[in-house]
Amino acid sequence: MTRFALTYEFDGTPFQGLQRQKHGPTVQQAMEEALFKVTGEELTLLSSGRTDAGVHAMAMVSHVDIEKDLTPFRLMEAVNAHLRPNPIGVNHCEIVSEDWHSRFSCLGRRYLYRIACRRAPLALAKKRAWQVPANLDADAMQRAAQALVGRHDFTTFRSTICQAKDPVKTLDRLDVEQVDGLFGPEIHIHAEARSFLHHQVRSMVGCLKLVGQGTWEEARITTALEARDRQALGMNAPPHGLYFVEALYPEGQK
Amino acid sequence: MTRFALTYEFDGTPFQGLQRQKHGPTVQQAMEEALFKVTGEELTLLSSGRTDAGVHAMAMVSHVDIEKDLTPFRLMEAVNAHLRPNPIGVNHCEIVSEDWHSRFSCLGRRYLYRIACRRAPLALAKKRAWQVPANLDADAMQRAAQALVGRHDFTTFRSTICQAKDPVKTLDRLDVEQVDGLFGPEIHIHAEARSFLHHQVRSMVGCLKLVGQGTWEEARITTALEARDRQALGMNAPPHGLYFVEALYPEGQK
Repeated sequence: MTRFALTYEFDGTPFQGLQRQKHGPTVQQAMEEALFKVTGEELTLLSSGRTDAGVHAMAMVSHVDIEKDLTPFRLMEAVNAHLRPNPIGVNHCEIVSEDWHSRFSCLGRRYLYRIACRRAPLALAKKRAWQVPANLDADAMQRAAQALVGRHDFTTFRSTICQAKDPVKTLDRLDVEQVDGLFGPEIHIHAEARSFLHHQVRSMVGCLKLVGQGTWEEARITTALEARDRQALGMNAPPHGLYFVEALYPEGQK
Repeated sequence: MTRFALTYEFDGTPFQGLQRQKHGPTVQQAMEEALFKVTGEELTLLSSGRTDAGVHAMAMVSHVDIEKDLTPFRLMEAVNAHLRPNPIGVNHCEIVSEDWHSRFSCLGRRYLYRIACRRAPLALAKKRAWQVPANLDADAMQRAAQALVGRHDFTTFRSTICQAKDPVKTLDRLDVEQVDGLFGPEIHIHAEARSFLHHQVRSMVGCLKLVGQGTWEEARITTALEARDRQALGMNAPPHGLYFVEALYPEGQK
């Protein structure tokens, strides 16, 4: 038995999220079906992160234990062939040790949230960014975001169905920048932490958007955080602007 | 009667090109139908460029003459509302003089061609770039491209159904660069000319790709050009990597 780590990109639009569910197609199901076609084995894919319906990934990392003798390159090529026409692409595959775990070995997760400030509906970035028909003040958003960095009780920014035992998390980075995107100006919000609560990034982005458009004073982010109450949340940003960017592991592992 | 110039983005994937045709949906048809819903007038949209099925536009410029009294902002908002769910977004609208013409006043056109060099199928940039499963030498492509810049007979790089009277065109710019795209490394090819022949950009890109992968020597671009023969063409790049980027007009006009 060999443990393989796979790094793959997906467009979350047609999926009910990453994790296998009773209803609707998921990324895990598509991956496991492709793996079955390659190996003939009923495999379970374990992943570094979970993503909601509509959320994308640039480089999700998962692992799987396979009996069949395959090189990483051969596995990657065959899985990609069988994944079609699903919008999933495996960019990297390697053999890892049997005590390496995509979720438990992971030291950090990075997310990106894209906002396109314009009145016209998105055509080329449709379902790839949140279109907001107002000019947002990225500097004010960046200042306000810093109140969330560090170790806090993030109950306000947590889904009511979040299953984490503890609402206390350490947010290592939350940076807002204005960028010149290929299809026009965008605001990018970069979030990094060891782990996140369910809906945490989208909840933080939703409140920062209210700051950016002037509906919320910058200080209200702190008030919302300190309330430790979901009722203090301004709004949840939609899933299609969110990307799982990277899973971080100890050097030399994976 | 007022002449309006509209600048709009579109995803070319679901369309049989820009220009109205007997069969299949086109961008022009979608735009004219939205304009009819707003004005009640049977209008003809005239455009700075033509694009093939699957080719995208970041900023196509078209004009239309309208009887109904409308501000540019009101027209843009209403057209965008009626365009849904077509992947077309009008980003700019203004009143222009009656002797201004989106096609005949246009002094130059800019195109971008995107190539993603990777083995995995594209997920996030699916139908937005040409996936090539080889590492292309962008420097060799850039050197080879310079042989095409200037005034030449581009018969080799011209579709057999091209309707232009003269195959001689002046290519002002053809630059190849390696860029760090949001979803991974890409090669971008920038082309600029007063006007292009049918399939010219895609034909030039197809041959440059052969240079980039080492199938063609750099000098073969010159041989192909001098042959003035479609048979000397290496290959046509697919439409979905191509973007109409900008139409250039005399300063102060539009």
